[in-house]
Amino acid sequence: MSKDDIFTKIPELNYTETAQNIDPNEFEKLIHGRRSVRVYIEEKISDEIINKCIDAALLAPSSSNLQPWEFYRVKSPEKKKEIAKYCLNQPAARTASELIICVARRDTWKKHAKQMLELFESDKEQETPSSVISYYSKLVYLANTIGPCGIVGFFKKILIAFKRLSGVMPGGNSSVSDMRVWAHKSTALACENLMLAFRAYGYDSCPMEGFDESKVNKFLNLPKGAEATMIISAGKRADNGVYGQRVRFPKEQFYFEI
Amino acid sequence: MSKDDIFTKIPELNYTETAQNIDPNEFEKLIHGRRSVRVYIEEKISDEIINKCIDAALLAPSSSNLQPWEFYRVKSPEKKKEIAKYCLNQPAARTASELIICVARRDTWKKHAKQMLELFESDKEQETPSSVISYYSKLVYLANTIGPCGIVGFFKKILIAFKRLSGVMPGGNSSVSDMRVWAHKSTALACENLMLAFRAYGYDSCPMEGFDESKVNKFLNLPKGAEATMIISAGKRADNGVYGQRVRFPKEQFYFEI
Repeated sequence: MSKDDIFTKIPELNYTETAQNIDPNEFEKLIHGRRSVRVYIEEKISDEIINKCIDAALLAPSSSNLQPWEFYRVKSPEKKKEIAKYCLNQPAARTASELIICVARRDTWKKHAKQMLELFESDKEQETPSSVISYYSKLVYLANTIGPCGIVGFFKKILIAFKRLSGVMPGGNSSVSDMRVWAHKSTALACENLMLAFRAYGYDSCPMEGFDESKVNKFLNLPKGAEATMIISAGKRADNGVYGQRVRFPKEQFYFEI
Repeated sequence: MSKDDIFTKIPELNYTETAQNIDPNEFEKLIHGRRSVRVYIEEKISDEIINKCIDAALLAPSSSNLQPWEFYRVKSPEKKKEIAKYCLNQPAARTASELIICVARRDTWKKHAKQMLELFESDKEQETPSSVISYYSKLVYLANTIGPCGIVGFFKKILIAFKRLSGVMPGGNSSVSDMRVWAHKSTALACENLMLAFRAYGYDSCPMEGFDESKVNKFLNLPKGAEATMIISAGKRADNGVYGQRVRFPKEQFYFEI
């Protein structure tokens, strides 16, 4: 199968999935109701709800479905205090009943690509199209290999620049910076699901990016290819939990039709 | 006001916002119903719905509320063909009735920080706490300034490493790589809202990251500090639009309690 076919051909699959209708009003309440809540009252969130929220996070899409994320729920009160300190003891962390450290892993893609292939192999019900097998056994490597000190990525970038002179060519990732962006991006998709989930189950959240990254990494004993994307606090909204009306700049600044 | 107070003090505001309850079933249908749809039937999405979906995207949280995103709806059929080509003519792009290029801007934060201060100044109803003014007039600059060729960021990084020896210190952004991660992360939060919105209004979407970035940048005439985070296609799901059952690795691989 040519490389073009991998992308352009619609695979012949005997599979149909229909989606149930959603009440748009419920969605609008959800999106409008989600505010960054910075003060919570003392009320626990049940394990059942936390689990449902994590499930929602894990159902976000990810780049090539490689799921480059991890979620650490900080349960022990001492550890919670420690993490709140790393978040500068801001009320959003200090008063939260839950702290979830959302981690982006740029180092798990090879393992996960192999895992995808193993899953396809073990699937007896459905034959995986050869384009999908090619994708996970070859293209994913072409897209994400940067080599030691990014040396492969460097040459890949030059090669791609040449190839682009005569046609369309996606660049994939060719540096540590690209791989970081890649992993944080997918993890952020899951983070948004997580925050919306808390709201849907009657709780609130606050995404925090201002924390001592180095201490958090050490605390979780993260390897070099892993970094916290954000720490999400959650709990029951206090009356003074939202710091004023929502501020958004005019839509014309951000939305264009071309 | 000391730097500590900016973070730790709960501001005295006369503001309360309560959230409406959501039907958790509707949320679960939404999250489970969102699949990456790669084949669409020929059915337009109304301008009204597109606008509502963009509104939902713009209600996502962003780092320091600096809204480092932009959304380009490709309307003209010729331009749509062009963008589909840059996405390797994959069915998800080729058959879509909508293509929205979601852009991360790491170069608008100064302008937006000023705009925040202007908004606070013009607000006659509510006095902005001095901590918030300090945040947008000082701390945002400390966190995000990297200087030409990242030279300021380089020294900032060294200084922060020293400061961390004796206490907690968030690093902020100290390189182009950090700024890229920063902007893409917030943009991805908005992207997730956008995809969920399409589902909520009866349509579907596919996030695409495999495209010719260089040609897309040129097409949009983007400045150096802007990059497409992903291109989201949308439309009405075809019967063969979902390529098989959802694949997720076991939760134990991604979720930890500590």
